[in-house]
Amino acid sequence: MTTNKGWTLAAYLSGLPSVANFKLVESPAPPPGDGEVLVKNLWLSLDPYMLGRMTQQKSYTKGVELGEVMTGETVAEVVESKHPGFAPGEKVTAPAGWQLYAALKGEALTKIDPSTRAPLSYHLGCLGMPGRTAYFGLNEVGKPKSGETLVVSAASGAVGSVVGQLGKIAGCRIVGIAGGKEKCDYVTGELGFDVCVDYKAGNLFRDLKEACPKGIDIYFDNVGGETLDTVLRLVNTFARIVICGRISGYHAAEPYGIKNLGSVLVNRVRMQGIIVFDWADRYGEANKALAGYVAQGRLKTRESVLEGIENAPKGLIGLVKGENFGKQLVKLA
Amino acid sequence: MTTNKGWTLAAYLSGLPSVANFKLVESPAPPPGDGEVLVKNLWLSLDPYMLGRMTQQKSYTKGVELGEVMTGETVAEVVESKHPGFAPGEKVTAPAGWQLYAALKGEALTKIDPSTRAPLSYHLGCLGMPGRTAYFGLNEVGKPKSGETLVVSAASGAVGSVVGQLGKIAGCRIVGIAGGKEKCDYVTGELGFDVCVDYKAGNLFRDLKEACPKGIDIYFDNVGGETLDTVLRLVNTFARIVICGRISGYHAAEPYGIKNLGSVLVNRVRMQGIIVFDWADRYGEANKALAGYVAQGRLKTRESVLEGIENAPKGLIGLVKGENFGKQLVKLA
Repeated sequence: MTTNKGWTLAAYLSGLPSVANFKLVESPAPPPGDGEVLVKNLWLSLDPYMLGRMTQQKSYTKGVELGEVMTGETVAEVVESKHPGFAPGEKVTAPAGWQLYAALKGEALTKIDPSTRAPLSYHLGCLGMPGRTAYFGLNEVGKPKSGETLVVSAASGAVGSVVGQLGKIAGCRIVGIAGGKEKCDYVTGELGFDVCVDYKAGNLFRDLKEACPKGIDIYFDNVGGETLDTVLRLVNTFARIVICGRISGYHAAEPYGIKNLGSVLVNRVRMQGIIVFDWADRYGEANKALAGYVAQGRLKTRESVLEGIENAPKGLIGLVKGENFGKQLVKLA
Repeated sequence: MTTNKGWTLAAYLSGLPSVANFKLVESPAPPPGDGEVLVKNLWLSLDPYMLGRMTQQKSYTKGVELGEVMTGETVAEVVESKHPGFAPGEKVTAPAGWQLYAALKGEALTKIDPSTRAPLSYHLGCLGMPGRTAYFGLNEVGKPKSGETLVVSAASGAVGSVVGQLGKIAGCRIVGIAGGKEKCDYVTGELGFDVCVDYKAGNLFRDLKEACPKGIDIYFDNVGGETLDTVLRLVNTFARIVICGRISGYHAAEPYGIKNLGSVLVNRVRMQGIIVFDWADRYGEANKALAGYVAQGRLKTRESVLEGIENAPKGLIGLVKGENFGKQLVKLA
């Protein structure tokens, strides 16, 4: 009998996550029921949204219960199928959680097109949820026009890196915000952003102002808090702010108070929160566009890989601190 | 020779406005030049936006300079015309400022249709800029749907009162926010809102939650600050927030810090700042609709009238403190 191993939620989040929030448990791999598929997870994606699932606050969907396996998207291989649509050996993306094996309804799985030549792990990053988030958030809410200035926070991250590259393709001037010289060098050197501002240098307003001599037309916000507040001082008339993430909000016990919302009125700013699920009926369109850009070498990506299920909590804790460099993954097999 | 009298800006605003910010000056009424019209102001409108013009901060348009006559919209009568489109005795609305007489280019004046049976002063309120602000802000950004819950702050004010009544016509449940029992009684009794929450009672969150059992779908924000922050805790998925004013922002030396912007992400809220000028090419449409509702008795209004140019500063100072009850006007003749 195959042994499953996975992380459950041991304590709700209050403040920063720590290993004490999680518990590693072993159990037999579950046999698939009728219509179900047993999958073996190959790659686990770690994403900031998981922090929201670890609280009892209202969020997009219900949170993880205490004792339940942590939620998460994986790339997996079909081991055993009791669903007519899947056969052993096929590769899928699945909401299979922080564990080695899972039995899931066939309808919950998405087959990976075997003709896609990109590495399997890309289906959790630039060709997966983060890539589609960037695609719809930028195009549907940001609405980039050639010549505009687009600012992206968490610029070296899974979503931010795609936003900037798509913005470049749309003809915008791209200004990233990232933490530290190494990430900034990567953002301008490898990803082709025009400038990258290092927020850790401690002069965000001054440096961002200098990087945006014509002001800011679009801000794709992955962090919230003080960075958003600073951007609000620099936006142009009719600017669009895509609220996609707020990883800075998980640091503090007390939420940061945004003081420059007056700018939304004066500049007739449109600020909108987005969740990729809202475009679920158009995922095919995004997948096709993103895969095309990857194949053409116009969409580059970087992965931060930890080995083994044991390291999953470490990876999520590192995300909050900005320790990851690129899309955070755990390699499981 | 006719003597003009008017208020100039004596000191930029810092904190709350006081009489020391203004200076009353007398001068001869200016003779109209070629293409100009000399008007005698009958009614002066006092509006929160004027506070923004009294600072050196960036705002929609340039501010008032020290020594310059305070900016303001009036209903006026043509006294002498050197413009072929205007004749003495005609009534107009004009950006004629806080004074008794002004000589203005004919192009800056808007004739009042003499067949409109509404009182002249309405052209500064429900049939003027505040009415049009309510009309476009609600319809173009709020996008009310029948059965939705619409919350309006400064509900008894010039803009808020029109927003609520237009929302009622659109089939929404209307919840006002106003200060004090007298205003709240007026908002529900006379204007027909479903409920009105008295923010001065000190339990805004609890009272607003009780008033909105199905949550908030649209918030038309005239005040900003803590009220906006409270509404953010109660909004539904895909809520729209129309940022129209922030009179609360003029109270404090330090701006209020908004802590609940996380709700914009979780609930995919769309928050947008509006200025009525952006729909200038569609004013005719709004005027026609609003005049129709007034004629049908479906759009009611209340005016707070001070007599004489000497009282203009007092009126604006009162606006900030919420002392006005309805559209604040100064009767000049």
